[in-house]
Amino acid sequence: MISFSCDYLEGAHPKILERLLETNLDQTEGYGEDPFCGAARELIRQKIGCPDCAVHFLTGGTQTNLTFIAHALRPWQAVLAADSGHIATHETGAIEATGHKVFTCPAPEGKLTPAHIESALVLHRDHHSVVPKMVYISNATEIGTIYTKTELTALHECCRANNLYLYIDGARLAAALTARGNDLVLEDFPKYCDAFYLGGTKGGALFGEALVIVNPDIAKDFNYSLKQRGGLLAKGRLLGLQFSALLEDDLYLKLAAQANVFCQRLKSAFEDLGFSFLVDSPTNQIFPILPNALISKLRESYSFRDWEMIDADHTAVRFVTSWATTDVMVDTLIDDLRRFCHE
Amino acid sequence: MISFSCDYLEGAHPKILERLLETNLDQTEGYGEDPFCGAARELIRQKIGCPDCAVHFLTGGTQTNLTFIAHALRPWQAVLAADSGHIATHETGAIEATGHKVFTCPAPEGKLTPAHIESALVLHRDHHSVVPKMVYISNATEIGTIYTKTELTALHECCRANNLYLYIDGARLAAALTARGNDLVLEDFPKYCDAFYLGGTKGGALFGEALVIVNPDIAKDFNYSLKQRGGLLAKGRLLGLQFSALLEDDLYLKLAAQANVFCQRLKSAFEDLGFSFLVDSPTNQIFPILPNALISKLRESYSFRDWEMIDADHTAVRFVTSWATTDVMVDTLIDDLRRFCHE
Amino acid sequence: MISFSCDYLEGAHPKILERLLETNLDQTEGYGEDPFCGAARELIRQKIGCPDCAVHFLTGGTQTNLTFIAHALRPWQAVLAADSGHIATHETGAIEATGHKVFTCPAPEGKLTPAHIESALVLHRDHHSVVPKMVYISNATEIGTIYTKTELTALHECCRANNLYLYIDGARLAAALTARGNDLVLEDFPKYCDAFYLGGTKGGALFGEALVIVNPDIAKDFNYSLKQRGGLLAKGRLLGLQFSALLEDDLYLKLAAQANVFCQRLKSAFEDLGFSFLVDSPTNQIFPILPNALISKLRESYSFRDWEMIDADHTAVRFVTSWATTDVMVDTLIDDLRRFCHE
Amino acid sequence: MISFSCDYLEGAHPKILERLLETNLDQTEGYGEDPFCGAARELIRQKIGCPDCAVHFLTGGTQTNLTFIAHALRPWQAVLAADSGHIATHETGAIEATGHKVFTCPAPEGKLTPAHIESALVLHRDHHSVVPKMVYISNATEIGTIYTKTELTALHECCRANNLYLYIDGARLAAALTARGNDLVLEDFPKYCDAFYLGGTKGGALFGEALVIVNPDIAKDFNYSLKQRGGLLAKGRLLGLQFSALLEDDLYLKLAAQANVFCQRLKSAFEDLGFSFLVDSPTNQIFPILPNALISKLRESYSFRDWEMIDADHTAVRFVTSWATTDVMVDTLIDDLRRFCHE
Repeated sequence: MISFSCDYLEGAHPKILERLLETNLDQTEGYGEDPFCGAARELIRQKIGCPDCAVHFLTGGTQTNLTFIAHALRPWQAVLAADSGHIATHETGAIEATGHKVFTCPAPEGKLTPAHIESALVLHRDHHSVVPKMVYISNATEIGTIYTKTELTALHECCRANNLYLYIDGARLAAALTARGNDLVLEDFPKYCDAFYLGGTKGGALFGEALVIVNPDIAKDFNYSLKQRGGLLAKGRLLGLQFSALLEDDLYLKLAAQANVFCQRLKSAFEDLGFSFLVDSPTNQIFPILPNALISKLRESYSFRDWEMIDADHTAVRFVTSWATTDVMVDTLIDDLRRFCHE
Repeated sequence: MISFSCDYLEGAHPKILERLLETNLDQTEGYGEDPFCGAARELIRQKIGCPDCAVHFLTGGTQTNLTFIAHALRPWQAVLAADSGHIATHETGAIEATGHKVFTCPAPEGKLTPAHIESALVLHRDHHSVVPKMVYISNATEIGTIYTKTELTALHECCRANNLYLYIDGARLAAALTARGNDLVLEDFPKYCDAFYLGGTKGGALFGEALVIVNPDIAKDFNYSLKQRGGLLAKGRLLGLQFSALLEDDLYLKLAAQANVFCQRLKSAFEDLGFSFLVDSPTNQIFPILPNALISKLRESYSFRDWEMIDADHTAVRFVTSWATTDVMVDTLIDDLRRFCHE
Repeated sequence: MISFSCDYLEGAHPKILERLLETNLDQTEGYGEDPFCGAARELIRQKIGCPDCAVHFLTGGTQTNLTFIAHALRPWQAVLAADSGHIATHETGAIEATGHKVFTCPAPEGKLTPAHIESALVLHRDHHSVVPKMVYISNATEIGTIYTKTELTALHECCRANNLYLYIDGARLAAALTARGNDLVLEDFPKYCDAFYLGGTKGGALFGEALVIVNPDIAKDFNYSLKQRGGLLAKGRLLGLQFSALLEDDLYLKLAAQANVFCQRLKSAFEDLGFSFLVDSPTNQIFPILPNALISKLRESYSFRDWEMIDADHTAVRFVTSWATTDVMVDTLIDDLRRFCHE
Repeated sequence: MISFSCDYLEGAHPKILERLLETNLDQTEGYGEDPFCGAARELIRQKIGCPDCAVHFLTGGTQTNLTFIAHALRPWQAVLAADSGHIATHETGAIEATGHKVFTCPAPEGKLTPAHIESALVLHRDHHSVVPKMVYISNATEIGTIYTKTELTALHECCRANNLYLYIDGARLAAALTARGNDLVLEDFPKYCDAFYLGGTKGGALFGEALVIVNPDIAKDFNYSLKQRGGLLAKGRLLGLQFSALLEDDLYLKLAAQANVFCQRLKSAFEDLGFSFLVDSPTNQIFPILPNALISKLRESYSFRDWEMIDADHTAVRFVTSWATTDVMVDTLIDDLRRFCHE
């Protein structure tokens, strides 16, 4: 059984494990105040070209989202998201549990636009409604699509004009930055958003996300929120070590680029066989619409997720590749796929 | 510089790193639904003699406390704690941030008694006050003291009589169970409390706490709270692997026993030199009261924490040992200490 | 200037002021434990035919909604509402501020159906999403429509089948029960829902809502929530006195019936002049779509609210009548309206 | 049966009811945006000599405390209070339910001092603890004592020096300002604190508290919090009308002065009979320590509250007078008291 069900199926890239072994008995301060975290912070600041931004390490995406959003907003302020946004769908109400409304906009491709934001603002005009104060986007999105520089700039300008924070969930940021059609680089993010995170969990680390807070107004006192929400890891060094390993020599981007290539090769195979997709995604997630009989057949040897029922006979499913996916895995699947379709 | 400042200065016991290496490329389901977590849950249930209890893995102590307490209590219910309890002092209001009052009782040795509980109940008698519904204790406590079986039984009976949950913060449970004077074993905890956790972070793991919920009334739906509060690790397998490694062959207890021995050897050295202690602690934390001049001298070669100012010339300080402390570290310190005192 | 802008423009029905005067110097216990509240509770239980239900008095609708919902739900549970539901739009995120997600369903007439509920349930299937646990409806709705007995029964059955609470916001319950097309009576509500409230603020009282909790599972300990959320009025007697005054001789329903008649008379006048409506509402709120020029003309002598821009030249506006509206007010408006249209 | 059990036993001063009657059919905007609220705001600003402060009307003390504190603090900030402070004892954890810790200081006379504040600050020094950011005091306190100008000035200076907000719960502010020993006037409060409220519920109103926010940093957007927490009364005019009635001709202070005189007359009677008191309170609450037999005898004709058990035979009880207490009530009690003691 080979699994394409998600991008957190394995442990970590070997370089990370090496670093853990090498440094295991070094004594360091706890809670992220160690030299490994210090070095990783510096490396991130250098890679994104933002020497003054705050960098914090957390263990997971939901934790990062809830801690940052709860930190930045006042109680009557809300966050806008696409209706497919992770905070709106698959975080068990984590944002609401900190007291904040998530206002969702219908966005078939998983992407917000200035028009969405302006429509939302019209509905929130006095103290009988919440105040939209943050725009949350994911890049790559939950359905594998990406934002272009033009699109991100437009969101940035709309947010500035309306006094809104722009926050980017980068659980799959590396996948976006190495996708076909992408024209953004790491250095762009501090220019266009108030905060974003570099996802480690889905990018080759054991676990960990690096939150970058660019806007100093919302950077202050973040350590208090981090501790209060349970996200301050005692042995924070583990996070620093992993991000240094990933960012040195751009391993982070290289691993994502390779995962994208594998996924797109798989996509071409589906296309060649005449299948269509729920959405045209250039990253490491694809959503082919398949006959249920073929799905059953594939499930004998492969794991992948049902995503959406299309009709009585067809279902959109999701295949995901990761840093740990290999040539052999993808080729085996493609071979089987072709065989099943031509039987 | 040798550090005795806390018990989370290093990485993890080598056996844990080995396991991570061995299993690194195995594909498993995420979010704790993998076979490694399954095996670790079974091992814990067996070690504590409680086949039906729920076992969940989290990444840190504050996260475990806030998630469990918020899960178990209704909004108007409060938790009782010693005034030195971790949830009352060093978790940045994490429990209050989930909406619950922590009602504290003055407890000079860090330990709650039935008398504390009964005094608190007298003050909370109608709907103008919160309802005390949970008793939180730490074993070992934040100042290194431990509960005996008689004490724990008395708390258990008081809680049962008053319809209160008893919850034990076991960040240093292994230290307690291997201390001089301890008469409790792992199998006792499911008998006397509704929930407790086995601390991994301070017990040889990279990170991780294993929460055991014995009382089925508060075990239901815990996965929802775990996800909502940001504590559900994507690669949950990392937690399962670590706890299995620690619990096999009782490594967990052996490591703690050794740390206690080292710390108590250090304690004897202070005693022999005529120093007194803030509290008589039999575990891996000691709190000698030292002249400030000696403290300065020691700080040239050793790290340890100031705990409490005693008078203009004396301070109680804290020395902590861990699974990674060695003979050499302790002996070097003791030699220096004797030398400084006899100069 | 005559105002039709809402149904809380004046003080209270004179009978209520008389009662306040008569009883002003009686000494009673505070916090709703007085004989006036006791009598009002009994009267409500009798009117709704539910001798065992819990009855609590609060001062406003948002307070009632947030206190009840926060009381009934566990942290990971959510409430479903129409997208026009008051809790979703005009309560400044009050429900989210207590930690709960409001999941909204598009409902053009302001009314939820079993199909809405079932669609929502499909999206919430495991612990990565919240658990829908309550259905919130308003009767009359925020746009003046009402539920029939058939519709309410269907919702009730759907909720029972799916283990959901059904809660009815009755800010304008009297308007619903006295509307054209209504076939529900007060005695029906305890049969079909778990809780509902009788709105006083919009029904002739100075202020006050009477929350009825039918389901004993969620009635327990409600006084704690009431105090904790700031809704327990010190001189609770004021609420009891008002509800007794309103419910004796069915004054409550008579006042609403009269307001409905006035509003529907106004509606006919608009219809006769050829205007259409945003929605066909049989209660004390109507939403005619008018030319902007006519709106400007009317605004010289009347207050009413803009509701929704229809096109560059037309706006849907809202006219509301209340217990204090008079024949003269309505006739004056109708005369002016006809005159303006025929000029 | 005559009751001295609290100061919210009756309705309202007749002047208030007159105003409600006179204005009953006037049509006004809702939610405090009416001319009656406008006039009351102006009157308050004039009486306190602070033309720019924000004034908001709420319906009760717990609601005022929770709404203001939740509005002013960030999630990791805490409020300091005396251990007898209302927010710490009798508000069912309302402050914690909004996410904030109430840190209490032992204060036998119910009053905080700069020494309390400084001791608390020493314990909260980094991001592992909450940040004390507000000092909450009550004047008069929960046990009837009052702050002098010297004491209040010292607190003010300590708060300024430590960047803390000073907030005064004025549920019984009028009682304080008219007590023996008081040297504060209304105009002092905007000078010494960031916010305070004028209690109406215990001062002659049906209900209502007037919150004054002096510090513009925490005044902004308060209407959002007011609506979100359920405290924005639809017919806000009722609150404006009441405060105007109370503040014109200083009725507010006159009523309190009279209640204090009655209570202190009763206190002298107890003193003359040789009884001591739990605390020496100069306002409308006294706490005599009485033999249990006398208490039982008095309870045949009078209501009053048990406050604290002193020993097996004695209990401290509480007698409270109000604007509605009469000469006859007090004299009857004093006569009975003397008779019972001399039998």
